Amino acid sequence: MEFTAKAIAEFLKGEIEGDAEIVISNVSKIEEGEKGTLTFLANPKYTEYAYTTEASIIIVNKSFVPKKKIKATPIKVDDAYQAIASLLQLRESMKPKKVGIHTNSWIEESSKAGKDLFLGAYAYVGENCVIGDNVRIYPHVFIGDNVVIGDNCIFYPGVKIYHECIIGNDCILHGGVVIGSDGFGFAPDTAKDYKKVPQIGNVVLKDRVEIGSNTTIDRAMMGSTIIEEGVKLDNLIMVAHNVVIGENTIIAAQSGIAGSTKIGRECMFGGQVGLVGHLEIADKVMIAAQSGIPSSIKKEGTVVQGAPAFPIMDYQKSYVYFRKLPSLVARINDLEKKLKELEQDI
Amino acid sequence: MEFTAKAIAEFLKGEIEGDAEIVISNVSKIEEGEKGTLTFLANPKYTEYAYTTEASIIIVNKSFVPKKKIKATPIKVDDAYQAIASLLQLRESMKPKKVGIHTNSWIEESSKAGKDLFLGAYAYVGENCVIGDNVRIYPHVFIGDNVVIGDNCIFYPGVKIYHECIIGNDCILHGGVVIGSDGFGFAPDTAKDYKKVPQIGNVVLKDRVEIGSNTTIDRAMMGSTIIEEGVKLDNLIMVAHNVVIGENTIIAAQSGIAGSTKIGRECMFGGQVGLVGHLEIADKVMIAAQSGIPSSIKKEGTVVQGAPAFPIMDYQKSYVYFRKLPSLVARINDLEKKLKELEQDI
Amino acid sequence: MEFTAKAIAEFLKGEIEGDAEIVISNVSKIEEGEKGTLTFLANPKYTEYAYTTEASIIIVNKSFVPKKKIKATPIKVDDAYQAIASLLQLRESMKPKKVGIHTNSWIEESSKAGKDLFLGAYAYVGENCVIGDNVRIYPHVFIGDNVVIGDNCIFYPGVKIYHECIIGNDCILHGGVVIGSDGFGFAPDTAKDYKKVPQIGNVVLKDRVEIGSNTTIDRAMMGSTIIEEGVKLDNLIMVAHNVVIGENTIIAAQSGIAGSTKIGRECMFGGQVGLVGHLEIADKVMIAAQSGIPSSIKKEGTVVQGAPAFPIMDYQKSYVYFRKLPSLVARINDLEKKLKELEQDI
Repeated sequence: MEFTAKAIAEFLKGEIEGDAEIVISNVSKIEEGEKGTLTFLANPKYTEYAYTTEASIIIVNKSFVPKKKIKATPIKVDDAYQAIASLLQLRESMKPKKVGIHTNSWIEESSKAGKDLFLGAYAYVGENCVIGDNVRIYPHVFIGDNVVIGDNCIFYPGVKIYHECIIGNDCILHGGVVIGSDGFGFAPDTAKDYKKVPQIGNVVLKDRVEIGSNTTIDRAMMGSTIIEEGVKLDNLIMVAHNVVIGENTIIAAQSGIAGSTKIGRECMFGGQVGLVGHLEIADKVMIAAQSGIPSSIKKEGTVVQGAPAFPIMDYQKSYVYFRKLPSLVARINDLEKKLKELEQDI
Repeated sequence: MEFTAKAIAEFLKGEIEGDAEIVISNVSKIEEGEKGTLTFLANPKYTEYAYTTEASIIIVNKSFVPKKKIKATPIKVDDAYQAIASLLQLRESMKPKKVGIHTNSWIEESSKAGKDLFLGAYAYVGENCVIGDNVRIYPHVFIGDNVVIGDNCIFYPGVKIYHECIIGNDCILHGGVVIGSDGFGFAPDTAKDYKKVPQIGNVVLKDRVEIGSNTTIDRAMMGSTIIEEGVKLDNLIMVAHNVVIGENTIIAAQSGIAGSTKIGRECMFGGQVGLVGHLEIADKVMIAAQSGIPSSIKKEGTVVQGAPAFPIMDYQKSYVYFRKLPSLVARINDLEKKLKELEQDI
Repeated sequence: MEFTAKAIAEFLKGEIEGDAEIVISNVSKIEEGEKGTLTFLANPKYTEYAYTTEASIIIVNKSFVPKKKIKATPIKVDDAYQAIASLLQLRESMKPKKVGIHTNSWIEESSKAGKDLFLGAYAYVGENCVIGDNVRIYPHVFIGDNVVIGDNCIFYPGVKIYHECIIGNDCILHGGVVIGSDGFGFAPDTAKDYKKVPQIGNVVLKDRVEIGSNTTIDRAMMGSTIIEEGVKLDNLIMVAHNVVIGENTIIAAQSGIAGSTKIGRECMFGGQVGLVGHLEIADKVMIAAQSGIPSSIKKEGTVVQGAPAFPIMDYQKSYVYFRKLPSLVARINDLEKKLKELEQDI
């Protein structure tokens, strides 16, 4: 399908600078742009490519002032990344969606699904489940007994949702995600043995949660592990039992959150971050990648780094001197030597 | 089902302080306790809730001396966490268990299973397997050829056990666990290419091993990767080829153990710990979260932290000064200045 | 099957020292060697076992000069690890291979496969796929629409390959690997909400790529996430969207690479390493385990450690002093005290 710069600018409420009739039929990365494609510039690291890209149309921020001639026809918008997201969503919405129930899939008779269900090959739905409208369940998905699922969810291949968990509307779970496995709870029995503490709670995902592949979210010991509206979790993340993650918090890959920790809303955590259990993390807290959080963070908007973490500017100052430790030691050696000489001189 | 405080106290060999006839029909978290439920206080962080919880019965340690009036009826026991574990296990044991072989599952004819097998939808069991009694195999589990499985095991959805692995009695494997994938072994072939070293060993899990979701345990190059009795591994852990983990060792999520490392018994590792290969770790060693272990730890009961790790008290002292490095540098600057003045004065 | 030392030496182009007619029928680890087995010594950490092993034949490097008598018959080769790899590959090649299409598997009619396909129970192949010759697809594997697969690939149970991804020849994907899940892309929508950025690219694996269990590789936002020839990835690794990993690079378990980072060829990364997004890493760079890489590394062959990482020798010097910080502070205290005394004396 072809679109003119004019049509695109209208959809995005943007301004064209140049040929409004130029036509594109595909999108491209700025460094690989080809004639007949639309590209975008959002990350300033890629600015140099704006001048060399062969793409026919380039979406840029209104704040972008080119320093050289741009071959592509610019469409100026308030937020180029937002704009490309809107265009790609439009493109996706025009694709045919998978629907229908595969011959080789299984849904127990006691379960109910809404309209336009897609149930892929070898997918399994247990007893007494309630599934909303427009849900897409790919092959090899497991849904345990008594699970409740909202509308418009997508579960990619191999997602596993244990019994009694609750999934909101518009959730996307990627391949291999495990929701509701037992929390890691063991009571020391004798000096050396452990007794399993049955985990009788569940996991609740609210609306618009997206979870990356092979991430695991354990069920609560009692009550619920809760992922609030709009939370986005990347791949290979571990969320332990009874954790609560607040609205619109975003967590990068391979981070881990130990049991019963409560995280505020609109937080952002880098990759490979670790939080110990039973903490409270305020809203809008930011944690640098690979940091370790040993205690609660009470102040909204705190930004920390390190393992254990402390305020990021302080961490970075300390780390500069960590790198210089050999020269600091040399200076201490030198001071000691000079002081000794001075003492002898007197 | 309803239980009186009296019945519960008898089962737990605990002492009631108050109304022995009060009745509960469910359990609850202390901070969410409701009338008609039983709760418990084990972690001192939650002590404040003991005075406010609406639960009808609260299990507490005998050592707990309330500072205020408690609304709930206390049952005093030696170990409240143990006691709640026992109660929840009782509750679980009263639930009906899944049994039967799903129409859409497959077990090769050469394999044998004991009594009361549950084989879920789309589960697959390969050739020449031997499966014990009371084994529960959930949907989408894969069991390769020549696998031996003891009694009373539970394999949750999507567990994968490669050929020739051996699983003991009473083992629990959570969703997506991979047992017996190839160890990471490659021999440099030319300057830049690698030749795969076939991994012809297996994985052996002894009795009462529990493994969290999406954890992976690689098969030995030769011989066996061995997980001894009573080991508990959390989610997303990596155990490399030829590793041995000693009895009743507990490892938190996202830790990784490189090839051929041997870990003693009753160790405890925090989350995101890493151990390099070919080490020996003594019994009862404790490793703080996110630590890195570059060399063997010979002394039983050593407690370490850091990357690379050293004794935890020393690490924490060093880290205090790491945080103060900017002020230490200021003091060195000051010393240099004063010394220079002094030298000029003389 | 039995082999003489003579036959093995001929196959390996090695030299026998001793009884050329001695016979073995199996292989063993050096510390567990038994009569009638062949073992090897490659890692010098295991040298002591060379003198005590009960194995009948031992493969050693030509450079190895024994200090004591060796019971086993040595076969000397240029590279003992290479040699054992060759022997084990020979052994593997003699085993019967799985072939045939399981009754309970599904391949959409629009897809084509080459000769000698093995398609295991409950495996699913989507629309318009093209699969090469001698491909082995184990149970519960998911292959999405429009996927292209080369010759001689092995996909172990539960591998998931999303639509439009391209897999080269001789690739091995272990249990639970996810190829082509959506990259983690969200555009801030309002102050607190996020809009999904559809990920319309794919993942391309070139020839001879091996990927460990439960590793995840996200599809590109646009264009391709690319894993070049001969790359070996261990278990539980995260490769984000639009990453490129150069030829024959090897990455240990639980490492993570953020979006759009480009890694050179023949690099080696330890376990639990993290790289932030949009970096360029030169060829032959080595990164120590648990390190964090915050910026591009331009120089070929750089070796780094730390979080954030810097040259490994400098890191290790700094870390020595980090461990000594308490004594350095004592020395600063002492200097201040003495200087004060001196000032008073003058």
